[in-house]
Amino acid sequence: MTGFQLQYETYKQAVDAALVSLPWGEDRLSRGMTYSLLGGGKRLRPVLALAAAALAGGDPLALTPPACGLEMIHTYSLIHDDLPCMDDDDTRRGLPANHIAFGEAAAVLAGDALLTLGLELIARPLPGIPPERNLRAVVLTAAAAGWRGMVGGQMLDMDGPPGKPGLEWLAHMQSLKTGALFIAAVELGAVLAGAEDEAVARLRVYAAALGAAFQIRDDILDLEGESAVLGKPTGSDGKLAKTTYPALLGLEGAAAALRQKTEEAIAALAAWGKEAAFLRELAARAAGREK
Amino acid sequence: MTGFQLQYETYKQAVDAALVSLPWGEDRLSRGMTYSLLGGGKRLRPVLALAAAALAGGDPLALTPPACGLEMIHTYSLIHDDLPCMDDDDTRRGLPANHIAFGEAAAVLAGDALLTLGLELIARPLPGIPPERNLRAVVLTAAAAGWRGMVGGQMLDMDGPPGKPGLEWLAHMQSLKTGALFIAAVELGAVLAGAEDEAVARLRVYAAALGAAFQIRDDILDLEGESAVLGKPTGSDGKLAKTTYPALLGLEGAAAALRQKTEEAIAALAAWGKEAAFLRELAARAAGREK
Repeated sequence: MTGFQLQYETYKQAVDAALVSLPWGEDRLSRGMTYSLLGGGKRLRPVLALAAAALAGGDPLALTPPACGLEMIHTYSLIHDDLPCMDDDDTRRGLPANHIAFGEAAAVLAGDALLTLGLELIARPLPGIPPERNLRAVVLTAAAAGWRGMVGGQMLDMDGPPGKPGLEWLAHMQSLKTGALFIAAVELGAVLAGAEDEAVARLRVYAAALGAAFQIRDDILDLEGESAVLGKPTGSDGKLAKTTYPALLGLEGAAAALRQKTEEAIAALAAWGKEAAFLRELAARAAGREK
Repeated sequence: MTGFQLQYETYKQAVDAALVSLPWGEDRLSRGMTYSLLGGGKRLRPVLALAAAALAGGDPLALTPPACGLEMIHTYSLIHDDLPCMDDDDTRRGLPANHIAFGEAAAVLAGDALLTLGLELIARPLPGIPPERNLRAVVLTAAAAGWRGMVGGQMLDMDGPPGKPGLEWLAHMQSLKTGALFIAAVELGAVLAGAEDEAVARLRVYAAALGAAFQIRDDILDLEGESAVLGKPTGSDGKLAKTTYPALLGLEGAAAALRQKTEEAIAALAAWGKEAAFLRELAARAAGREK
C-alpha cells in the first residue's frame, strides 16, 4: 500500500467502524437504513472531511461522527434518486436498489431517516470543539444538501434543461447535485477543526473542481463502462436521454474537461506544501478511477 | 377574541409571516414547498414551541425562525405520508395533495427539502442565545423526527401491528408518529429560552399527553367527520383497515381516553399558576376541536 492508500483506508475504516457500531435494531427501518448505508461505497465525502480537518491542523479521527453524518446524507440521496418516480434504477452497487429490496414506502422512509440522523450526528457536541463550530457545520451542510443545493440539483435533473441542453445548464445542475455536498464535506472538516476563513475558501474551490471532475468521470464511465464494474446498468442516463458531458463534448472533449477540472482542484491547494499531498493525489486518482 | 385566541393568533401570525418572507423563488421546487407549507394549517407545533418559551421566561417571538423549522418538518411528513406508496391520499386540507399537484418526484423532493431547511432553521444562531442551546434543539428535534421517532412511527403505521391490533401497539405507534414532534416542540421552545431541566421534563409530560389526546381526537373526527370539515376524505384510515382508538375502544371508550389524556396534559402544568393558562386552554380546546 502506498502512503495515500494507507491514509485513505485509515479514514475509511474509522468511518465504516463508526457506522457499523451505531445502535441499529432488528426492525425493518433499521434494516432498510443499514442495507444501503453499510453496503459498500467509497466513503469519499467523509474522507474529504477528515482530510480537510487534518490539513487545518485538527485531529481528523475525532471528527468521525459528523463525517458519518455526511455519508448518511449521501446515502439518503442515492435511495431517493433510485425510486421509481425518480431515476427508477433497480440496482445500486451491484445489489437490488433499496426500494426493490424493501419496497417503495420503506425506501422513502429509510432515506428520510438517514437524512435526519445525518444532520443529528453533525449537531452532536464533540469533546473540545466549541459548539458554534457544530452549529456552523449543521447550517452549511443543510444548506448544501437541501433546497438550493443537492435537492435543488436533483429537481433540475428530473425536469431537464428548459431548452436546448447546454454546458452551462449541465455544470450548474451538477454543481448542485454533486458539487454542493463535496464542498460541504471539506468545509465541515475544516470548520470543525478551526481553520481560518482563507483556508476554508481554498478548500471550497478545491472541492467544487473535484466535484465537477468526479461527475464528468462518472458520465464517461457510464458511457464506456460495463455493468459489472460500475454496479449499475450502464447507459442508464442515456436511456432517459439525460444530458451528459460526453453527449455535449464528445468523449475527447469530456476527457479534456476532466483534466482541466482536476488541474483546477490541484491548483487550489498551491498554498499548501506536502501536507496537502493526500488531497492532491485524491484528485488525480478520482480522474482516473474505474468505478 | 378571547385572550387565548389573541395569543394563539399572535404566535400563528408571526410564524405565517416568517414562513412567507423566506426567499422563495419561482422554480418548481420552491412552488412545491410553499404549496404545502403556506397552504394553511393550525401551526400547532410552532405555537407550542413559542408558548413553552414564554412559560420558561423567554421572548417567544425571538424564536420564530426555529419554530418555523418545526412546521417545515411537520409539513414534510404530511407530503411524504400522502404519497401513493404510503397512505395514497389525493387531498390534504381540502386541496389536491402535493404529489397530485406537482407529481410524485417533485413531492418527494419538496419533502426532502423542507426537512433539510427545517433543521437548518433550528441550527441558525439567534441573537443572545448561546449556541449550545441551538445544538441541543437540533439534536432533540432530529431525534424526535427521525428513525426512533416520527419516521419510525410512520414505518410502524405502514407495517401495521405484528399480531392482533391492541391499544399498547397503537399508543406506541402514535407516540412516535405524532407525540415525538409535539414533545420536541415544547422542548425546543423551553431549551432555547433557557428553561430548567425540571420545567423541560414537565413540559414533555404535557406534550406527550397532548399528542395522544390530539391523535385520539383525530381518530374520532375521522370516523364521525365530514369530508368538507376535515379537508380530507373521512374514513380513509378505515379504508386501509388501520387500527384506531374508536375501532379498539368504541366511540364512548375513545372519548373517555381523550378526556383522560387531556386531564393528564393539564395536570402536568400544575406547578405553574396562571402563566400556564394558555397551554391549559390549548389542551382543553384540542380535545373539543372540530378539525
